[in-house]
Amino acid sequence: MNGLQALLNPGSIAILGASADLTKVNGRTLKYLLAKGYAGRIFPVNPKYQAIGELQCYPGIAAVPGPVDLAIVALPAALVPDALRDLGKHGVKAAVVFSSGFAETGAAGRALEREAVAAARESGLRLCGPNCLGLINAFDKVIATFGQFADGETPAGPVGFVTQSGAFGTAIAALARRRSMGLGYFINTGNEGDVDFVQAMRAVLGDPRIKVGAGYIEGLKDGPGLLGLADFALEQGKPLVVTKVGKTGAGARAAASHTGALAGADHVFDGAIRGHGIVRARNEEHMLDMVEVFANCGLPGGCGLGIVTQSGGAGVLMADRAEELGLKVPVLSAATQEELKQVIPGFGAAGNPVDVTGQFVAEPALLRDSVRIVLSDPGVHVGIVWLQLMDAYVDVLIKIFEEIQAGATKPFIVCWVAAPDAALKALRERGIAVLRGAEPAVDAAAALVNYAEARRYWLADREARTALQVPRLDLPQAGPVASLAAQKLLNESGVATARAVLTPTGDAAVAAARKLGYPVALKIESPDIPHKTEAQGVRLGLANETAVRAAFIAILNNARRYRPEARLDGVIVQPMARGDVELVIGLQNDPVFGVVVMVGLGGIHIEVLKDVAFRKAPVTPAEAGRMLDELRSRAILAGVRGKPPVDREALTQMISAVSMFGAAAGARLNELDLNPVLAGTEGVTAVDWLMVLR
Amino acid sequence: MNGLQALLNPGSIAILGASADLTKVNGRTLKYLLAKGYAGRIFPVNPKYQAIGELQCYPGIAAVPGPVDLAIVALPAALVPDALRDLGKHGVKAAVVFSSGFAETGAAGRALEREAVAAARESGLRLCGPNCLGLINAFDKVIATFGQFADGETPAGPVGFVTQSGAFGTAIAALARRRSMGLGYFINTGNEGDVDFVQAMRAVLGDPRIKVGAGYIEGLKDGPGLLGLADFALEQGKPLVVTKVGKTGAGARAAASHTGALAGADHVFDGAIRGHGIVRARNEEHMLDMVEVFANCGLPGGCGLGIVTQSGGAGVLMADRAEELGLKVPVLSAATQEELKQVIPGFGAAGNPVDVTGQFVAEPALLRDSVRIVLSDPGVHVGIVWLQLMDAYVDVLIKIFEEIQAGATKPFIVCWVAAPDAALKALRERGIAVLRGAEPAVDAAAALVNYAEARRYWLADREARTALQVPRLDLPQAGPVASLAAQKLLNESGVATARAVLTPTGDAAVAAARKLGYPVALKIESPDIPHKTEAQGVRLGLANETAVRAAFIAILNNARRYRPEARLDGVIVQPMARGDVELVIGLQNDPVFGVVVMVGLGGIHIEVLKDVAFRKAPVTPAEAGRMLDELRSRAILAGVRGKPPVDREALTQMISAVSMFGAAAGARLNELDLNPVLAGTEGVTAVDWLMVLR
Repeated sequence: MNGLQALLNPGSIAILGASADLTKVNGRTLKYLLAKGYAGRIFPVNPKYQAIGELQCYPGIAAVPGPVDLAIVALPAALVPDALRDLGKHGVKAAVVFSSGFAETGAAGRALEREAVAAARESGLRLCGPNCLGLINAFDKVIATFGQFADGETPAGPVGFVTQSGAFGTAIAALARRRSMGLGYFINTGNEGDVDFVQAMRAVLGDPRIKVGAGYIEGLKDGPGLLGLADFALEQGKPLVVTKVGKTGAGARAAASHTGALAGADHVFDGAIRGHGIVRARNEEHMLDMVEVFANCGLPGGCGLGIVTQSGGAGVLMADRAEELGLKVPVLSAATQEELKQVIPGFGAAGNPVDVTGQFVAEPALLRDSVRIVLSDPGVHVGIVWLQLMDAYVDVLIKIFEEIQAGATKPFIVCWVAAPDAALKALRERGIAVLRGAEPAVDAAAALVNYAEARRYWLADREARTALQVPRLDLPQAGPVASLAAQKLLNESGVATARAVLTPTGDAAVAAARKLGYPVALKIESPDIPHKTEAQGVRLGLANETAVRAAFIAILNNARRYRPEARLDGVIVQPMARGDVELVIGLQNDPVFGVVVMVGLGGIHIEVLKDVAFRKAPVTPAEAGRMLDELRSRAILAGVRGKPPVDREALTQMISAVSMFGAAAGARLNELDLNPVLAGTEGVTAVDWLMVLR
Repeated sequence: MNGLQALLNPGSIAILGASADLTKVNGRTLKYLLAKGYAGRIFPVNPKYQAIGELQCYPGIAAVPGPVDLAIVALPAALVPDALRDLGKHGVKAAVVFSSGFAETGAAGRALEREAVAAARESGLRLCGPNCLGLINAFDKVIATFGQFADGETPAGPVGFVTQSGAFGTAIAALARRRSMGLGYFINTGNEGDVDFVQAMRAVLGDPRIKVGAGYIEGLKDGPGLLGLADFALEQGKPLVVTKVGKTGAGARAAASHTGALAGADHVFDGAIRGHGIVRARNEEHMLDMVEVFANCGLPGGCGLGIVTQSGGAGVLMADRAEELGLKVPVLSAATQEELKQVIPGFGAAGNPVDVTGQFVAEPALLRDSVRIVLSDPGVHVGIVWLQLMDAYVDVLIKIFEEIQAGATKPFIVCWVAAPDAALKALRERGIAVLRGAEPAVDAAAALVNYAEARRYWLADREARTALQVPRLDLPQAGPVASLAAQKLLNESGVATARAVLTPTGDAAVAAARKLGYPVALKIESPDIPHKTEAQGVRLGLANETAVRAAFIAILNNARRYRPEARLDGVIVQPMARGDVELVIGLQNDPVFGVVVMVGLGGIHIEVLKDVAFRKAPVTPAEAGRMLDELRSRAILAGVRGKPPVDREALTQMISAVSMFGAAAGARLNELDLNPVLAGTEGVTAVDWLMVLR
């Protein structure tokens, strides 16, 4: 048994400072363990008592007979490090430290926490906390918490919940209980001195009794760890649903590039997890809605939604929401419609949403048969059944849903508005997903569809992902990289750039322009002028020799005026590139996730509408295609206003190549902006680039 | 007492076909009236009985002694017209017709409904239904329904609910009851043969006991009526919250202009109601959340949100959502922060969200004082207090919120996650708004702020609105209007257009170009070619005489090739206009709302992103400004990428002028598209226009 296993499923538990007052923190834990029937041995430790209730109490951990897997520590903060050392000496494998007064209180607390964590590590102990509510393993009645949530029933279920916040986590767990949703695990990681969100969730998902992971994240430290966890979850086929707070504001860091300015923590987080199949919830109820369906439904094979209702309006509302979320509400096949007409008297419309009307109350088989027929339509991959109230018909309806479920090969969700509590409970006991509103039901159906697609995609792309060969590059020193040096690195990584010639004189510039072909662009080249346009160091569309000569002189003069001390390497000559669509592709070194790659359309799309997609680097071309598909402005790539579509293959290749450069540069990368990248019907070219190493 | 008053608050009720079986449709109504204590006289009418229970039963309406205000009709459909005539003869003022088998069943049913409605009108009866669940006036115990909703308690409250759907309406009413939200009225208008949503809601809002209107709309027929109702509601200061289904699909009508293509029913509905302060809910829970706060909170004087929580994460989640919705979460003043530090031990951060931590359980005054201090901050206009569970502290907390409310001069919302039912009930009884999730609480706070702003704005703009003088125009016959004739009409309405000269020959075109100044544009002019570009009938940026001559010939040739039978009036010469931003302004004749005006930025904004705003015409320039503020791309008007802001005053004037033309054209208008309109730093010009009358 390793430390994490001892933490989650200990064979014996010691409670340091156990109290005979069962309303106090350490008294409560004892009360819960006894009341809920923990089967392992319990050792209260407190020199004040000989016994607590029928349990013998020990003066210290050393006096405890037999091995202890887990210790509960609720001592004053200052006593914690020594207590952990004592636990280590006694061979205890894990500790939950409830005590506060650590890193959350300031510098002295941080030092004390470091000491406690060091003590635990030296002693070979895994530590949950400090400053946490502890954990519940409901399967094995391990109630290692003093939180008020444990006051109520804690039935086990296939959902593992890990929360960084005690208060919000308790609220979410209480909401889950109100839904009769059993949490197999409830873990509050608190200050995460040792065991963090990622480690706790990984241990939870490793339990075969768990089908879904639900997480509440306030501050993520280990981005790559989270993505590794996500890959593990995908491998296991266990969806991971998270709520993360902190969307805005925090990410507004000063940066030299668009990529940097847009790499607000939340943009990056969203993109990074999307590439690894983590499902993000907007809020607590949305999370539980999705957990409900993941715990009870199989994964749909496509995005077709079949809707059966008792109200035309509810059907329209759901169809609208489905369309907003990119689901299809397909017209049912002629055969399906014919079958429905046999079942629903007076059925006339093309169906889907199918309105069975209130008549099913008189004739319950109507509902069962309609749902079966709709689910059997080849265009339907997931079903929603909407109904309301029906207090007088709970038993009949439960039976109908049981019958539907028994024969169903596709997932379906019951949406029962203002349902009697007995109905909700009975359905959940039978493993039938039930939600309480039309929009939440469609949102949850979309989550099923999207997760299924993300997982299919992730599996299909696995080979290509493994085959990615990060290039070995010879990187120059820190700071902005000269244009031609940067170009060479990009080209070596497979990124196509516009040709560029560095010229020291007007004559050389004219010769270069003649060779490259008019019209050309001239740009200042200086390690001290990263923003060439700002320095008026760029002239575009120069059509002839005279223009080139004049531009050469003007650019040098402007650069000298802009920054008199700047080292001027010369002037770069480039042919004017053409393309139908202007994009920006960039890299950024995110403090949580490491190097991330970004793409967006240029101009107002990126500057005003912030319409960009991020991923952790590197990405395959297929994954790059998914980034493009996330852009709100993606229609432009397919061609609008009479323009042809851009060369998508070249574009996704370039995004992938940029990401490979990013992966190769790794910690050395500060930022890279290719802006603009011009995409045409054939080929994609980076026209300007700014590379900064560190 | 008029017919609507008799419908909603009758002094006596006759039940045609009353049944002694109290489980049947007409038996149930009788049961409800008796059980809930209706104070007026009840007259069962059925030749089969002498009496039902203790009530005398009459063989026909003619036999009923004394006046009858309202009759309940649940006869077979075919008998309804005659029954209504009989009711009319007896002086009955209103009828609720439960019977189905009317317009909802097809052509024969439609004819029967027309007959029934005509019978009611001839007899001076107002009619609710047919095919409806009827209504409840909970204040006066008028339970004129057979719906299952009446099986439970129907306590009165300040919310009037009118629903077009029986099933969905019942679900919503049941959800309201679960919140202990009293519905003063529940009215299901069914087929709306006579009394429709607008009329019913207006009667409900006219009751001084009602503070908020809540509506569920599936199919709106009378757009102007709804806006008139909205104005009445604004005048009374009673917010009107609606859920409308049918967002997508239905509105996709074929139309010649962008405006037409974008005038999907939902875009128009959204814009029209926004101009009149109607609050639209996304779904049933969102509606009830907003109704909850409107019923219990005063209106905030600004958009500053103060947040007090028991969890840092909840605070961040709410602050993020507030930012998304355009609310401010202001840094509290130094004085406020100083005060808070006295109250919250260890308080360090700048505050807002203020985290009082779990310590308030030990020291309840902490919560009360913190909320009071935050609400007193000058930057805070509405408060949210977040907490969770606390089953053991309900009484203490209720008292605290009572004390806060007693002294509060600003609205606040309690957000209590997983609250004990007793707490919810107690708070609602005390008129304290309480919601059950962080995001819903912020959404509801935003609704308060937005409604307050809309109402302030509506009041401030009243004078300007009244002063709008719709011009009198001499409109040509139906069909596309020739460019110069359309230009004249636009100019007369105050819409600035680019100068344009119609030329019959190349020489004339050259002369016109010389006069207007190069470069110029040439465009084909033909009543048979509304889409000039499609016919290759437009040439832009012609810089000299040669170019103009060549273009003239090419355009005529293209037009003849495009449509050989087209009547060609000549070629229009226009100077090339300049502007920093391209917009589209248009008009459309909406089947529900009449003439509506639209604005959006040109190009991909309108074609790909569908980023447009609609209003019912006419609008004042101030209202036009609010349309611009609704555009997602509005930042572009303020100047991006180094461009100066456009002339907003000229732009809003033009939108208003276009809307005035629309109001003047009225039913004659088919559509108008000004595309593009070029807006610069000084002035705004319509460069091309397509006007179609009918």
